[in-house]
Amino acid sequence: MKIAIIGATGMTGKALFHEATSRGHEVTGFVRNETRGKEILGDTAQLVVEDAFAITGEQLDQYDVVIDAFANHAEPSENLDLLTHLIHQTRKHDVRMFFILGAGPLLQEDGSYVYDFLKTLPGAEEWVDEPRYGVTELQVLLSTPDVNWTSISAQNEYVEGPKTEYVLGKDHLMEASDGESHVTSGNLAGAVLDEIETPAFEMQRFTVSDK
Amino acid sequence: MKIAIIGATGMTGKALFHEATSRGHEVTGFVRNETRGKEILGDTAQLVVEDAFAITGEQLDQYDVVIDAFANHAEPSENLDLLTHLIHQTRKHDVRMFFILGAGPLLQEDGSYVYDFLKTLPGAEEWVDEPRYGVTELQVLLSTPDVNWTSISAQNEYVEGPKTEYVLGKDHLMEASDGESHVTSGNLAGAVLDEIETPAFEMQRFTVSDK
Repeated sequence: MKIAIIGATGMTGKALFHEATSRGHEVTGFVRNETRGKEILGDTAQLVVEDAFAITGEQLDQYDVVIDAFANHAEPSENLDLLTHLIHQTRKHDVRMFFILGAGPLLQEDGSYVYDFLKTLPGAEEWVDEPRYGVTELQVLLSTPDVNWTSISAQNEYVEGPKTEYVLGKDHLMEASDGESHVTSGNLAGAVLDEIETPAFEMQRFTVSDK
Repeated sequence: MKIAIIGATGMTGKALFHEATSRGHEVTGFVRNETRGKEILGDTAQLVVEDAFAITGEQLDQYDVVIDAFANHAEPSENLDLLTHLIHQTRKHDVRMFFILGAGPLLQEDGSYVYDFLKTLPGAEEWVDEPRYGVTELQVLLSTPDVNWTSISAQNEYVEGPKTEYVLGKDHLMEASDGESHVTSGNLAGAVLDEIETPAFEMQRFTVSDK
């Protein structure tokens, strides 16, 4: 399939780029900086150099699937703003859109957001904006009936690492076999590509955990 | 004050334009069509002719207050998309932003949204998208700490009409003295201009009812 990855040089974008390429898909990375793009994704990587906020629906219609892997940890409002920009651009278009979220908008056992727990942690004000915007991103997706979207949430610990074995979940925080909530970028990328090749969560959010 | 009104030719925009002008403010209408703008707002009206989705934060910094009165009843997703565009454009800017919402995101006595009741009405699928997007608009505003925003909700019956006497509320649906939930565009415009001149609801949503 023709797959575009927005934010292709980030931790998630890189893992997705390599997983999709290794499965034989035709992959294009949307990046801000060509030199950095080639450095991280390789000299032969197919790149579009563009400000993500200038991307149009017409451009994205050239692909079967577009993955928004953009993540600005310093200015997490940008994550929400890009999601709403891409939704605006792709309403009533056919392209399948994929949005990567963190663990904040996953649910705890009592049905409240993981974010509601995270914000109570000491020092949370330093970093809790990102999961907070993640909750709003999910709320916007859940009120979007006219884009073919799927979203995946990572786990509490989301770290760079290889594809090993992974387990899918739906809306709740998961525990790996060691009792902790974690997933590697390689396992998340594996789950995204599985879903792209065999859709099971269209218009839904799901999640993935290391085994 | 220098006040800009986006969607100045609609029912709300018109009422705001006249109320603000009559109070001596310097008012600019953002409109899509100049001829229609002059027809509705008068030959001497100060207009900016522009696609609302092309408006930038730098442009809006020229005003003290900007009111988003844009309302697309046929494609209400545009209402949400314009709100998120304007938020993206004005994050960390000083301009005061005003967003007009309907009654859908007001609360019922039990704390649920008026929208949750509206969607149960027979035939609701024909028109319930607009209050549904209104709820998401409020959710986005409530997760926006870096824009100086205020929002006002209308009542269940929101009709064109003069400024008479009105009563303010906060988050709950109100009843006028006849026991019904209604407000005229003139009364809503009066409440907005009161709030612009004497801020009491910064970073909050409030509402207004006919007396």
